[in-house]
Amino acid sequence: MASEVTENLATMSLERFGTIPTTFASIPHGAEIKSMSEIDPVADIGKRVTLRARLHNVRGTAKNAFLVLRERHMAIQAVFFVGENVTKEMVKFAANITKESIVDVGGELVSSTVKSELISFKTCELRADMIWIVSAAGERLPFQIDDAARAEEASAPEETPLPRVNLDTRLNNRCVDLRTPANQAIFRMQAGILEIAREFMQRHRFQELHTPKLISAASEGGANVFKVSYFKSDAFLAQSPQFYKQMAICADFERVYEVGPVFRAENSFTHRHMTEFTGLDLEMTFKTDYHEVVDMLAAMLNFLFEQLPIRFAKEMEVIRAQYPSSEFTFLEKPLVLNYRDGVAMLREAGVEMEDYEDLSTEKERRLGQLVKEKYGTDFYILDKYPLSVRPFYTMPAQEEGYSNSYDVFMRGEEIMSGAQRIHDVTMLEERARHHGVDMKTVEGYIDAFRHGVPPHAGGGIGLERVLMLFMDLKNIRKTSMFPRDPNRITP
Amino acid sequence: MASEVTENLATMSLERFGTIPTTFASIPHGAEIKSMSEIDPVADIGKRVTLRARLHNVRGTAKNAFLVLRERHMAIQAVFFVGENVTKEMVKFAANITKESIVDVGGELVSSTVKSELISFKTCELRADMIWIVSAAGERLPFQIDDAARAEEASAPEETPLPRVNLDTRLNNRCVDLRTPANQAIFRMQAGILEIAREFMQRHRFQELHTPKLISAASEGGANVFKVSYFKSDAFLAQSPQFYKQMAICADFERVYEVGPVFRAENSFTHRHMTEFTGLDLEMTFKTDYHEVVDMLAAMLNFLFEQLPIRFAKEMEVIRAQYPSSEFTFLEKPLVLNYRDGVAMLREAGVEMEDYEDLSTEKERRLGQLVKEKYGTDFYILDKYPLSVRPFYTMPAQEEGYSNSYDVFMRGEEIMSGAQRIHDVTMLEERARHHGVDMKTVEGYIDAFRHGVPPHAGGGIGLERVLMLFMDLKNIRKTSMFPRDPNRITP
Repeated sequence: MASEVTENLATMSLERFGTIPTTFASIPHGAEIKSMSEIDPVADIGKRVTLRARLHNVRGTAKNAFLVLRERHMAIQAVFFVGENVTKEMVKFAANITKESIVDVGGELVSSTVKSELISFKTCELRADMIWIVSAAGERLPFQIDDAARAEEASAPEETPLPRVNLDTRLNNRCVDLRTPANQAIFRMQAGILEIAREFMQRHRFQELHTPKLISAASEGGANVFKVSYFKSDAFLAQSPQFYKQMAICADFERVYEVGPVFRAENSFTHRHMTEFTGLDLEMTFKTDYHEVVDMLAAMLNFLFEQLPIRFAKEMEVIRAQYPSSEFTFLEKPLVLNYRDGVAMLREAGVEMEDYEDLSTEKERRLGQLVKEKYGTDFYILDKYPLSVRPFYTMPAQEEGYSNSYDVFMRGEEIMSGAQRIHDVTMLEERARHHGVDMKTVEGYIDAFRHGVPPHAGGGIGLERVLMLFMDLKNIRKTSMFPRDPNRITP
Repeated sequence: MASEVTENLATMSLERFGTIPTTFASIPHGAEIKSMSEIDPVADIGKRVTLRARLHNVRGTAKNAFLVLRERHMAIQAVFFVGENVTKEMVKFAANITKESIVDVGGELVSSTVKSELISFKTCELRADMIWIVSAAGERLPFQIDDAARAEEASAPEETPLPRVNLDTRLNNRCVDLRTPANQAIFRMQAGILEIAREFMQRHRFQELHTPKLISAASEGGANVFKVSYFKSDAFLAQSPQFYKQMAICADFERVYEVGPVFRAENSFTHRHMTEFTGLDLEMTFKTDYHEVVDMLAAMLNFLFEQLPIRFAKEMEVIRAQYPSSEFTFLEKPLVLNYRDGVAMLREAGVEMEDYEDLSTEKERRLGQLVKEKYGTDFYILDKYPLSVRPFYTMPAQEEGYSNSYDVFMRGEEIMSGAQRIHDVTMLEERARHHGVDMKTVEGYIDAFRHGVPPHAGGGIGLERVLMLFMDLKNIRKTSMFPRDPNRITP
C-alpha cells in the first residue's frame, strides 16, 4: 500500500509529457510499465495503467488526440482530452509524435466501444494523461505498416486497388516489415516448428550436434560451393552437415540431428531457392532395414503437421488473414510411394518419361497433384530413386538401377532429400570412383569408414520450405527473416 | 509364443557365423537385435539375446574365445566354447575379427562374475553361439580405445607410464577418438547444456531465430573477418549474430535467441580460441534498467549450473574418471561485481593497473582467484566496463568513462560478453564516428534504428567454453566435436 501511494505521489509530482533521456539514467514518469497482454479488459476497468508501445496511428485536434498503440499483434486506443491533467500542450505534443515511435502512455482504463478492425481491445480504451517518448521514429517511414499488412484480396475488383508493398521493398526495410501481424506470426511459427521437432527428437533419443561449416574440401565435385579465404589458404562453406553427421554415426552417437545454416552457391532466383537456409539434418542407425529411418522421419513430420494447428491456431489465422491458403492435408499413416509407381502415375496422366529419369520440378508438382487426387494428402514420401540420379554415397537397392533413397514432398514440392548411406569402405570407394569424384576431396570422409560403421540413413529438411509450403506462402523469402539470394546479402 | 518358436527355429536352421552382405538385402541370422541398455542382468538370465555392438577386445585359443562387446558407455563379455552349437571354425572366426568391427552376437545370458573394470555387466555374460560381422574394421587402428580412454593420472610415478594419445592424434582420427566413454559423455553434456538453456528460454518467452551468416560488410573495421567469394562480388562471415538479433528487437520480437556458428579469423592458438564455435546469443528489451537483462542472463546460467549435475551425474562421473576436476561452485544469488571494485581487488592484491585499462587474460584469471577466495564462487559477472574498451554500439553509463556493459566469467575465464546497446540513432552515429568506424560498413545496421527502437541489452555465450570450464577440461578442442583453428580445418 505504502509503495502504491508513494508511486502515485511520485507520478503526480512529475512532469506529464516529454522525452525520456536515451541513457535511461532515470525514467521521469516513474510508473510501472505493463504489457498489453497483462490487461484484463473487464477486471482492469477503472485502474491506472502505463503501457509501452508503438504509436501505430494518431489523429488530433487542438482539444483531443486519438492514438492507436500497438504491441506486437495487439492494439489499444488511447485518448487525450484537454482537462484537469491534460494540457493543450500535452495534446499537441501527443498529436505530433511520429508514427512507429515507442512511447510510454499512462492513464485510466475506461469502458468504451471501439469499432476499428485494427484494434484488438474493443470494449475499453485508455483515458490518457501522460505520454513520454522512449524512442522517436524518423519522419519518413519506408511504407505504412497498414499497407504492408493488407490482405492479398482486400480490394474488390471494381475498386481502386488499395496500396500494397512489394516484396523487394519489404526486404530492403525488413525491420519495419517484420512488425506486421502476419510476419510476427510467421516467425513465431518458424520457431514453433523447431520446438515441436525438438520435442519429437528428444523423445526418440536424438542427440543435437554442431558440426563445422568451414570445411577443407569442396565435396561432390565443388559445384555450388562458396570459397572462403582461410589464412594463407582456402576453405569452403559446408553445403550440408551430412558428412559430419555420418562421422558422428561412425563415432557411435547412434541418432543425431543438427539445426544450422546450409550454404548453396547456386545462381538461381526461383521462389524456393536461397543461398543460405536453415537445415534440420538427421541421421540414425537402423537394425535391419532403412525403412526404420523413413518411418521415423515420417512420424516426425506427421507429429509436426498435427501439432502446428493445435499450438499455433491464432498465428495461422493471422497469417491466412493476409495470405489465404487451404488447409494442409496429411494421412494418419504417411504415404510412402515407390518411385517406379510414381513414374507409372505420371505416365497414366500422359506425362512422358524414362524409367531412370530424375523428376523435374514440373513433374514433381504434377505428381503432387496426382497423389493429392488419389490419396488425399499434401505430404508423401517418394522412395527408391534411380541410382544414377543420386550422389555416390547412396546405397544401391537390391533391384538393379534403383537406390535406397527418398525425397519428401509437401504440396508437390521437395522439402527433404535422404538416403541409406553406404557404410562399407570398399563399396564407397568404388562408387566414388564410378562417379568420377576426385578422391582427394573425399579422403577425410572415406577414412571415417575404415574402422567399423553401423548401417545408417538420414536426410536434411529445409526449414523455410516447410513453413512456406504448410501455409502456402508461395515465396521462401517470406519465411526467412533476412533472406539471401545471389542478388541479396543485405540487410 | 508362436513367433518365439519360429524365430528360434529360423535361427537354428541358418548358418551361425559369417559376414552380413553390405546392402543388408537380408540378414542371415534373422534374430531380433537388442541394445545392451535393454538387458536386465537379473531377469534376463537364461534368455536368448542377440546384440549389435563393437568388438572392443578379443582373445582366444583353439577351443574358446573371450570377447568384450561395447555399445557406447556399456560393455559386456561374450564367450564362445567349442561344443554342441559352436564349432572350432566359429571360434577361430570370432577370434580373428578385427577390433572395433561391428558384430551381431547371439547366445544365452548366463550368470558369471566378471572382474574387468572395462566391463559394465559384472554379474552376467553372453554364452555365445552365433556371430556375424556387420561392418569390419580395418587391421590398423590409429590408436587403441583403451589408451585414448585412460585416466590422466592412471600410472603411479614409479611405474613406466602407460600409453596415452595426444590431442592432435585424437583430432586427426576423431571418429575413433569420439568413441571413448569420456567423449561420449562430453557430447551428451554439450547437447544437454542447450536442452537446459532452451527450457529456460522457452519459459521466459524468448523466441528462437536464425539470422544470416553471409553478410555484406565486415563489421567493426573488418579485422578478424573471413572473406567469401560471393558470385561476382565478396561477402563476409558473421562474427556474431548481434546486429541481426538487434534488428529483430527493432522489429518488435522483444526477446530473441539464436544458436549457431560464429566465425573469427583470429590467428591464435590458445587453449580457448577457435576460428569457428557455437554461439548462444540472446537479446531482450527491458523496461527501466539493463540489469533486468543481466539478471535474466545470470538466472539462466544459475539454472544451467544447478541442472547439469542433476541430469548428467553419470556423465560427469565418467568425464572425471578420465579428467579429474573440482566441483564448479556458484551462488544462489549470482555475484554482479562492479568493474571499479574488481580493479580495487586486483590493486589490493598487488596488481598494477589503470582505472580505464582493459583486463588482460592474466588479470582476468587473477581476479577470478580473488573472487573465489572472497565470495566462494566460480561464476560471477563483471559489470560497468570502461567505455573506451568496448565497441561503439555500447551504451555509455551515467558515470563518465564507464559503460553499461558486462562480461561473464567461469573459473576466471570469460564465457560471455554483453551490453546495453545504444538504441538512439543519433547517439549511435556519433559513437560510430568517434570510433572511426567506416560508416558505409554499418549503414544497414544504423538504418534499422531510424524507425523507433525499444531499449535493449543482450550478450553472446561461447558454448564450448561453458562446458570446458564447467568440467575444467583445459582445452576447448575437447568440447568441440570437430574443432577449427588456423591450422586445422579437417576432418
